[in-house]
Amino acid sequence: MKHVITALVENQPGVLARIIGLISGRGYNIESLNVAPTQDPDESRLTMTVPGDDKVLEQVIKQLDKLIDVIKVTDLTTKRYFNRELLLVEVGVTANKRAELVELAGLFGASVVSVQPNSLTIEVTGEASKLQDFLNLLKPFKILDLSRTGVIAVAKGE
Amino acid sequence: MKHVITALVENQPGVLARIIGLISGRGYNIESLNVAPTQDPDESRLTMTVPGDDKVLEQVIKQLDKLIDVIKVTDLTTKRYFNRELLLVEVGVTANKRAELVELAGLFGASVVSVQPNSLTIEVTGEASKLQDFLNLLKPFKILDLSRTGVIAVAKGE
Repeated sequence: MKHVITALVENQPGVLARIIGLISGRGYNIESLNVAPTQDPDESRLTMTVPGDDKVLEQVIKQLDKLIDVIKVTDLTTKRYFNRELLLVEVGVTANKRAELVELAGLFGASVVSVQPNSLTIEVTGEASKLQDFLNLLKPFKILDLSRTGVIAVAKGE
Repeated sequence: MKHVITALVENQPGVLARIIGLISGRGYNIESLNVAPTQDPDESRLTMTVPGDDKVLEQVIKQLDKLIDVIKVTDLTTKRYFNRELLLVEVGVTANKRAELVELAGLFGASVVSVQPNSLTIEVTGEASKLQDFLNLLKPFKILDLSRTGVIAVAKGE
């Protein structure tokens, strides 16, 4: 099972190294991770997806919670939450196939960020599964460059 | 100066720990970071923003480039590039202020992901500066939850 874990942490050098050291030191692969400041510049929020067994991951979360710079850890997998991810992709395309690619992007609510003679740069956001569907449909084209943020998530309000 | 650094890395446990250890071990604070798989499941792409002096950061990049699991490092700050970031925010709002908040979201091309009796969850993407402007305008409201991905970037095609 894939776990979506978020942590509120002190924005201090070394915090990220300790957190990641703890998780990868136990042999877990972090599939995606992101961290950025919150509205309070002293605090950052980290979101990661970690595939793994429920029981053992529960132990990791408890250990994270004990780190001094970690304010709060939540395993969102146990709650209702929204997840979103952002993808920027430069797709190689010649003039005669450009309309097809633009139409495909439109179907996914994606927007064209830039048009070059032999490529388009496209931005798309959505749940991770939607982004995967979009990437699957891009297979007939040539992906020249790709960057995705990894999942972020917030718990559903009451 | 804030540097936007991207690295293509082998998708192996421990890579992230080594990269972050190297950077924070030299006393640099990583302001935002994200990492996610690319179209090739054996490779991940990492993007980070690191504030710091050009000369010294150049050394860090050279060191990163020497790590065995790092395929390629680029300091995008020296190139033309697109950058985007995604923000999910739950904003506390009562019925009489809801229309004002929805209008504000519309001005930023943001979309309302969910409506609760006392809050709205909003998704917005754009350059980091646009997201900051949006957050500044949210100050009269109460931010209940916030998660941002940190910047991702791709070089501008020719």
